[in-house]
This record gives sequence, structure tokens and C-alpha cells, in this order.
Amino acid sequence: MSAETTRIEAFSDGVFAIAITLLILEIKIPAGSGPLSEQLIRQWPSYLSFLISFTFVGIMWINHHRLFTHIARSDDVLLILNLLLLLGVVVVPFPTAVLATRLGGPDQLPALILYNSTYVFIAFIFNLLWRYAASEKHQLLAEDVDPTSVQRISRQYAFGPVLYLACLGLSWLSASASLALGFALACFFALPPHVVASERSNGRN
Amino acid sequence: MSAETTRIEAFSDGVFAIAITLLILEIKIPAGSGPLSEQLIRQWPSYLSFLISFTFVGIMWINHHRLFTHIARSDDVLLILNLLLLLGVVVVPFPTAVLATRLGGPDQLPALILYNSTYVFIAFIFNLLWRYAASEKHQLLAEDVDPTSVQRISRQYAFGPVLYLACLGLSWLSASASLALGFALACFFALPPHVVASERSNGRN
Amino acid sequence: MSAETTRIEAFSDGVFAIAITLLILEIKIPAGSGPLSEQLIRQWPSYLSFLISFTFVGIMWINHHRLFTHIARSDDVLLILNLLLLLGVVVVPFPTAVLATRLGGPDQLPALILYNSTYVFIAFIFNLLWRYAASEKHQLLAEDVDPTSVQRISRQYAFGPVLYLACLGLSWLSASASLALGFALACFFALPPHVVASERSNGRN
Amino acid sequence: MSAETTRIEAFSDGVFAIAITLLILEIKIPAGSGPLSEQLIRQWPSYLSFLISFTFVGIMWINHHRLFTHIARSDDVLLILNLLLLLGVVVVPFPTAVLATRLGGPDQLPALILYNSTYVFIAFIFNLLWRYAASEKHQLLAEDVDPTSVQRISRQYAFGPVLYLACLGLSWLSASASLALGFALACFFALPPHVVASERSNGRN
Repeated sequence: MSAETTRIEAFSDGVFAIAITLLILEIKIPAGSGPLSEQLIRQWPSYLSFLISFTFVGIMWINHHRLFTHIARSDDVLLILNLLLLLGVVVVPFPTAVLATRLGGPDQLPALILYNSTYVFIAFIFNLLWRYAASEKHQLLAEDVDPTSVQRISRQYAFGPVLYLACLGLSWLSASASLALGFALACFFALPPHVVASERSNGRN
Repeated sequence: MSAETTRIEAFSDGVFAIAITLLILEIKIPAGSGPLSEQLIRQWPSYLSFLISFTFVGIMWINHHRLFTHIARSDDVLLILNLLLLLGVVVVPFPTAVLATRLGGPDQLPALILYNSTYVFIAFIFNLLWRYAASEKHQLLAEDVDPTSVQRISRQYAFGPVLYLACLGLSWLSASASLALGFALACFFALPPHVVASERSNGRN
Repeated sequence: MSAETTRIEAFSDGVFAIAITLLILEIKIPAGSGPLSEQLIRQWPSYLSFLISFTFVGIMWINHHRLFTHIARSDDVLLILNLLLLLGVVVVPFPTAVLATRLGGPDQLPALILYNSTYVFIAFIFNLLWRYAASEKHQLLAEDVDPTSVQRISRQYAFGPVLYLACLGLSWLSASASLALGFALACFFALPPHVVASERSNGRN
Repeated sequence: MSAETTRIEAFSDGVFAIAITLLILEIKIPAGSGPLSEQLIRQWPSYLSFLISFTFVGIMWINHHRLFTHIARSDDVLLILNLLLLLGVVVVPFPTAVLATRLGGPDQLPALILYNSTYVFIAFIFNLLWRYAASEKHQLLAEDVDPTSVQRISRQYAFGPVLYLACLGLSWLSASASLALGFALACFFALPPHVVASERSNGRN
């Protein structure tokens, strides 16, 4: 983090924080008749949808945080790429809610396509933002950044769009396989450069 | 607070601030017929629910702030534990609203169980996060941290899950006893390491 | 501003920012029949209510910002007084909306009482927070703070609760006089220590 | 950015972040009958309205960020001008939503007038804020600021109110011409001092 990128991070943190908190508004207070416990249980798709969205937005925040630990300078192109990324973050609750209302029904396929396309878009922009910042031409990374760590992130991120396109393709074959791959991908992007990152942050002190 | 944890705190502050502000949306503008004062008074469960949620989220923020005064480094596990804590914060308005609509009615028990379970979860995660950060193995605390202060927080937090489980158990015996214990617990977590904390902050200058 | 109060300010800024932005949700998109321009004009109480709330929350933010320019240290009592102040900020949209729907109608008086009571509460807490921070016993102000500036703020704030109580009293005599005094008070709290404040900030550089 | 303007920027970032994130709440989950894909496609005006608002608020944030890279000091007039600017930001979703529901219908003209007037107001306040901060009398800019860069911003911003008034005038002649000019203006304000700005930020390191 540097003084120059502080405000980009503050604005992005605000957007991530609001997007993740607004998700709770989707869960309605049961107001129907019948025992409360049954009404609460019947709402399980809302809880599932909330948890998936929360996980995805949370992991996107961790990734954004990780990238900007390395990025020390900004320019107008980076600002615009970051806005495109935030566009993806802000949109997430919409396809998730659509999916939650259609899963298992006759309209499952278009809902799944919408849902997976959003993640293809986000994976693509994450890649673009990182490649732009890490390119030798633009030199937006911190001077003391570890080149191995940069390479590992680049390699991990290169898989993103391809794997999310595979997720999208799986929509036509099997909804559960597509969702399972999506969840595995989220974990993949939450964890890998973990070792590198914590070595660096321990070494820094 | 350190540069390394600044963004975690900024993101968490955002989530706490939004969660606490969204609570007001639950209070509806009276639109029925009859004198306004009567309509306003009839809405008392909304005000009570709002005040309880506001107090709990506010006290959770104070606790989060207190922990991160001691935590100086972060790693990916801390990021994920913090996300789980924020999951609890974001969820709070839902069980509170459910409780407010059922208190005193036939569905009081399931509403109370849902409500108390949320706090058991939060107390458990708060403990986990603090124990992880304070463990000798991970060394995420600031070097100049006062060991007595760390021990006092650890000891206070150890009571959390047990006492909130007692609250949950009381749900089956007496709703008012369970709520009264819950409120006493909130005060307990707002105040105790107070003396230690202010001594430290005076001494620091 | 100091490192120690940074997070209180960040959390408070979040609450102020959200409270002021949520106000727009009160203005509904006209969906009735008839020409759009007429429907838009018929909604004037919503616009007025929005503008008054925006002005009040904005001026409260300026005051909060001004106080924390002088406050350099915090303790648990300050945290709790600040939470009480934020409680007032979060609540403001509710009495404003109630007033907007009843102004000029038979239920004007209870709406006006609710509205003015909120401001009495906020003025009282603002006073309490400032007096606590500025008291010699607690020494929470910055060391280099100008004593004249502190005294001027104390003197200005001392008028707050009394004048807002006068506003509340006027509710029974004349709604327009009460609202006019309220607006004059907002201007009074936005402007006065202006001269002092800008002298200080120029001198500081 | 300087310590003195940090809190103005934090508060403004919060308002921008919330305003841009709340936009997604306007897009409703399709709940009607008929195939999902058709229902999703029928909602295109909501998506268009969302994208336009997102772009405008995002570009306003970039401009706000750009101005405050140069502004190092603040006073009460700047605080109030900044609040007026945030008033414009907070309001944007309302005229955009009104426009989205009336575009192509008989009520297109008043909706377009409301929409363009908002941007005239914002362009006017942006100008006022910048001229106030950059005036020799108030000296709110950083000492090391590049005078050429200041002049270029002043020159670019001077066009704002005039060009947005032209947009407003075009409303009576052709809706599409007015909207196209509005979009071109947004791009104009996103890009121009780009070269200057990135030269400065490279040179700074």
C-alpha cells in the first residue's frame, strides 16, 4: 500500500463493504402463517444464495487487497480498470439472486449462464488489471516487490478466465458440476499464493 | 494499528458502519389511520429491536477495534477469520427482526433460538480470531504489546461462548431471563478491559 | 487527527456517509398516471424532507470533523459517547420522514415533537462528548491545541441543548417558527468557529 | 492528499461508494411468468440506466480524486462546497431512474430536463469548488503543485457548465443527440488531463 493508491483502496473497500452488507437485505423476515421454524427452513435458497455471494465477494476483497499490497503507483488506466472490477462486484448480488430463485426449476439454464458469465467477466478484468499493473512498461508495482511473488500471482490469475469459461460451458451439461467447479475456483483464488504472501509479510518486520 | 492491518480495519469499519446504519430501514413510517402518536407508540417492538441491534453491533465494533489495537500483522488465516466475524455482523439484523416480530407470541422459542445461536457463533469466532492472533506461533501482535493486557482479553473472551451457550439454553426456560443475560453479557464485553486499555493509551503518550 | 482516533473517525465517517446517502431512497420514482411534471411537483414534501435531512447530517459531519481535529486521544467512555452520537445520526431520517408526511395536517404537533426531540438529544450528546474530551481530567485533546479555540467551541455548544429545547417548546405555539429556529440553529452550528478554525489551519502550514 | 484533507476524502469516498453500490438495488429480480431469458431481456432499460449511472458516478469519483491530489488544505467554505457536490452525487440515481422509465414515451421531455439539470448543477459545483481551492487568495493547493496542471484543469472545467447547458438545450430538439453529447462529455471529463496527471505521478517517484 502506498499514499498514491490509498484512496483507490479506500473507495474500493467501501464498495466491497457495502456490496457484502447489502446481501442481507435479500433475506426476508418470514411474515406468512404456519410455525416459524417451518417458514425459516423453507427459505433455505435465500440463505444459500446469501452465503455464496458473501464468500465470493469476501474472496474478491482478499484478492483485491493482495494485488494492491504489490501495487504502489496508479494512473488513469488503472483507475478505470479498477472501476470495471467494482462494476463486477456491485453486480454480483443480482445474478446470485436470480440463480437462487430458479435453481432446480425449468429456467435453471439461463440463470446459470447469467451467473457464470458474471464470473468470467470478473476473472477477465482481474487479469487485465494485474497484467497492466505488473507490466514492465507501466511500472506501477512497488520497487521492493518480490519478482517470484509477482510471477506466481500472474500464473495463478492466467487460469481464471479459462477455468471460469469451463464453468460456463458446464452449465449446459450439469448444473451441480458447474456450481461445484465454481466453488472450487473460489477456494483456489482464496488460498494459493498464501505461503508466499505470509512469508513476505513476516519477512517485512 | 499498523500499515499492514489498516485495510482490514477499513473494510471491517465499512461493514460495521453499514450494518449499524441499515438498521434504521427496519423502522417504517406510520401510514395507517388513527392519531400519529398512537401509531408511533404501537411500533415499540421496532424501536426496541433497533436499539438492541444498534447496541450489539456498536459493542462488537468496540471489541474489534480493541483487538486490532494489539494486532499488528496479518496473514490469510486472519483475513478469513475476520471475514467469518463480519459474516456474523452482517447477519445480526435478521434474527433481531425475527425476534422483534415474535416476542410474546406462540413462536417465541424458535425466534429466541435463532437469535441466541447467532451470538454463540459470533462469540466463538471472536475467540478463534483472538487466540489465533495472540498465539506464540503466529506472532501477529505488536512487539510492544502489554502481555498482561493480552492475557486479560484472552481470559475475558474465553467466557464468551460458554456464557452465550447458557443464554441459548435459557431460551427453553424463560425468554426474559435469556434476554436479560444476553444484555448483561453485552455490557460485560463493552466494559471490562477498560481500565487496562485506558492505562495503556494514557501511558503511550 | 491522530493515529489513535483514526479508526473512530473512519467508522463515524462511514455511518455519516451511509446515513446521508440512504436519504435518497425515500424519494420514490413517480409511477402513477398523469403528466410526469405534475407527479414530480406533487412530491415536493419528499424533496424538502430530503434537503433538510441532508443539510442536518452534513452539518453534523462538519461539527464531528471539527471536534476530532482537536481530539487526539480516546478511551472507552469517548467510544460510547461517540456511539450515542451516531445513534442520533442514524435515527434522523425517521423523524424527518414522519414530519414530511404530516406537515400541515392534523397530526403536525406529535410529528414536530418527535422531530425536535431528536435534535435536543443530539445537541445534548454533542455537548457531553465535547465536555468529556475537553475536561482537564481526561486530557484527550491534542497538546498543541489552541485554548481559545477550545473555549469558543465549549461556549457555542453550551447553547445547543437550551436552544433546541426552545425549538421543542415552540412546537406547541407555531410550527413554522419552530422550524425556522431549527434551521437558524443549523446555520449557527455550521458557521461560527469558522474564523478560528481557518486561522488555525492556515497557521499550521 | 494531505492529513488535513484526509477526512473529507474518506467521507466523500464513502458517499461515492454507497451511491454507486445502491444503484444495483434498482434492478429487480424477475418474478413474472414466462421464460426467464425473455424477462431478463425485457428489463434492458434498467441495465442501461444502471450502467449510465455507474459510469457517471465512477467518473465523478475519478475527478474528485484528481482535484484532491492537488488540494492540500481545507476550510469551512471548501467543506460546504464539497457537501453540495456530494448532494449532486447522492441525487443522481433519482433522475436516472426517472429517465429510464420514461425514455421513448410521451413524458420523455420532462424526464430529460430533470436528468440534464442535475448534471448542469454538478458541473457548476465542480467548477466552483476547484476555482475556490485554486484561487490565489485561499491557497488551498499543495505548495509543490504544477501550475500548468492546475491551469489545464481550470480550462477543462470551465467548459463543463456551458456544455451541460447545451445538453439541456438539446433536450427540446432531440433526446438521442442530448444523451450522446452527455456521454461524450463524461468521456471528456474522464480522460483529458490524463497525460499531465500520469506524468506527474511518474515524476513524483
